[in-house]
Amino acid sequence: MDILNIRTFQRIDFIDITNEIEKKVKESGIMEGICYLFVPHTTAGLTINENADPAVINDIRLKVNNLIPYKDTYTHGEGNSDAHIKSSIFGVSLNLIISRSRLVLGTWQGVYFCEFDGPRNRNLYIKILAG
Amino acid sequence: MDILNIRTFQRIDFIDITNEIEKKVKESGIMEGICYLFVPHTTAGLTINENADPAVINDIRLKVNNLIPYKDTYTHGEGNSDAHIKSSIFGVSLNLIISRSRLVLGTWQGVYFCEFDGPRNRNLYIKILAG
Amino acid sequence: MDILNIRTFQRIDFIDITNEIEKKVKESGIMEGICYLFVPHTTAGLTINENADPAVINDIRLKVNNLIPYKDTYTHGEGNSDAHIKSSIFGVSLNLIISRSRLVLGTWQGVYFCEFDGPRNRNLYIKILAG
Repeated sequence: MDILNIRTFQRIDFIDITNEIEKKVKESGIMEGICYLFVPHTTAGLTINENADPAVINDIRLKVNNLIPYKDTYTHGEGNSDAHIKSSIFGVSLNLIISRSRLVLGTWQGVYFCEFDGPRNRNLYIKILAG
Repeated sequence: MDILNIRTFQRIDFIDITNEIEKKVKESGIMEGICYLFVPHTTAGLTINENADPAVINDIRLKVNNLIPYKDTYTHGEGNSDAHIKSSIFGVSLNLIISRSRLVLGTWQGVYFCEFDGPRNRNLYIKILAG
Repeated sequence: MDILNIRTFQRIDFIDITNEIEKKVKESGIMEGICYLFVPHTTAGLTINENADPAVINDIRLKVNNLIPYKDTYTHGEGNSDAHIKSSIFGVSLNLIISRSRLVLGTWQGVYFCEFDGPRNRNLYIKILAG
């Protein structure tokens, strides 16, 4: 298992980590298999979406904030319940197919680390298996 | 890795692809293992839900449209931001357990390809591993 | 494949099943690998979130009920459409990395079975593979 360190810069921040994961896949030497990603945090998540027009990620961020606002009638004392809810909705576990030593992704897809309570230093666990 | 071609007919369309995936599982000859599904598009997704009463899928579609409407204050120029947001919420990656050459599913479960910006011709990537 | 029986006690109930899964991992004797979880129901799901302050899970439950209310303009005759929608949003499939015979989880993470139409007796399918 490998660990990727990710620095986030805003309270809600979507960081394109596709290249970092591709690098780990290449380093593994595995040509065909599965890449398992796991976020060991309760106020962050993962998603795959468009990496061409940054307005897409911005629209995702705005709508999710609109549905699950930072300030609401939450009871959790730390004041970051919105981030926990967003984490459950996006999910912390994801897997990708590896073919010819590369992630199998659509033309417009990038893999994003979703920060919902930053800025922070975060970790992403990566396990790559041949198959 | 195998590719399933899927034709969608409405802007938002949930297509039951359970039988097509079962067929790929049988063709693989693998009796016990995992079936990995991956949607290489940024305005589509996957879900598992009831395949008995079509009103269930209809209610899912209506509620999701109500929470994330087609027209809203989005900034992405292509006008399909709602489809990108829905894709991130449903997810593009899913895996199923295979036992005795069949997908392990509950009595009422079907696997659905979720189109959020159709009609289009779409692909689904399928990788089946023994284990 | 193993089956975990889960008893839920409220209509919407988040049950921490981390210890039960850890037990299955230990029983498998597998030190390094992947643990695949699958819910064979259409009105339940899985999530990973904080297991320290119960207010977090309570806030998740309240917000999700607020966005997807029990009673609304649904068409499905059984009257539990909200539970189906919640199931699709949380998801029924999840996988965890196993390292040194233990689930790899963050300090504050627990694995929750999400009941959306209880109380009921539920099943969770668990498949553990070495790798």
